[in-house]
Amino acid sequence: MSLSMSTVAMQSFLQTLNALSKILDKAKAHCAAKKIDEAVLLQTRLTPDMFAFVRQVQLACDFAKNTIGRLTGEPPKFPDDEKSLDDLKARIARTIDYVKGFKDADIDATAEKDVTFPIGPQNTMTLEGAQYVIAFALPNFYFHATTAYDILRQVGVEIGKRDFLGRT
Amino acid sequence: MSLSMSTVAMQSFLQTLNALSKILDKAKAHCAAKKIDEAVLLQTRLTPDMFAFVRQVQLACDFAKNTIGRLTGEPPKFPDDEKSLDDLKARIARTIDYVKGFKDADIDATAEKDVTFPIGPQNTMTLEGAQYVIAFALPNFYFHATTAYDILRQVGVEIGKRDFLGRT
Repeated sequence: MSLSMSTVAMQSFLQTLNALSKILDKAKAHCAAKKIDEAVLLQTRLTPDMFAFVRQVQLACDFAKNTIGRLTGEPPKFPDDEKSLDDLKARIARTIDYVKGFKDADIDATAEKDVTFPIGPQNTMTLEGAQYVIAFALPNFYFHATTAYDILRQVGVEIGKRDFLGRT
Repeated sequence: MSLSMSTVAMQSFLQTLNALSKILDKAKAHCAAKKIDEAVLLQTRLTPDMFAFVRQVQLACDFAKNTIGRLTGEPPKFPDDEKSLDDLKARIARTIDYVKGFKDADIDATAEKDVTFPIGPQNTMTLEGAQYVIAFALPNFYFHATTAYDILRQVGVEIGKRDFLGRT
């Protein structure tokens, strides 16, 4: 018995992106209650040499979009121009729509397809679709989604792991 | 085409646990260079109402051990008594050995098996093996592994995402 590529990739991305969108609602309420400028929150980092919150959310979206896009062809480019939590929610929604635009069969057919993808600014790597998802896409996707969550915890947004798992 | 349960679960856990063990080597060197008491590092948190570093590593290990254990039977209990980074490396090694102790076929047979697992202190949930891994085990596992990494970044350990991905 086995898992389909669409279950592993699409379901993982959709569950956590939907959870992240609801987490941003709680971040919005927190900013309103505490009079925090959303533009400041978007630039908040765990430490100066890590990406800001806005970039963590953009990257979580991009690992979902680019994974599905590269498995099936060429991913679209989304501009990195979000200025507010609503903008970030719109990017998540656009990413979810993009992922949902594929049929399960489109993704299921890619387990053994060679996928070439950039790693860092200058290099590329080629892996079979299944390995691309397991060894690269999911760890990166969860890394940025978790770090976005961790930044919100550190600034006091009232969320717990149930929110991250989408079980609220 | 599809992925085997063993690829999705065992490979994901082993890649990131091996990466985490090497990250702890860099944390050890950082503590020695900066004269940081490892016992203090183990109790460091992103914010007071999140788990300390030691617990994040224990939980990453436990989501790997308990997932493989529940898919196949009953997981062993590991005591939560680590006092140093070497103790945590030993726990990771013990977890890796436990996961490696199963044959791929043992795990591959569990995609449709009902798995009942605790959520929170009082409740349980039952999911088919494949859903248990995708919807619950992997998000939890990566959540704690990433948060452990994020704590180390915040205290200044010189690591990057390549370390998290095990590509160093």
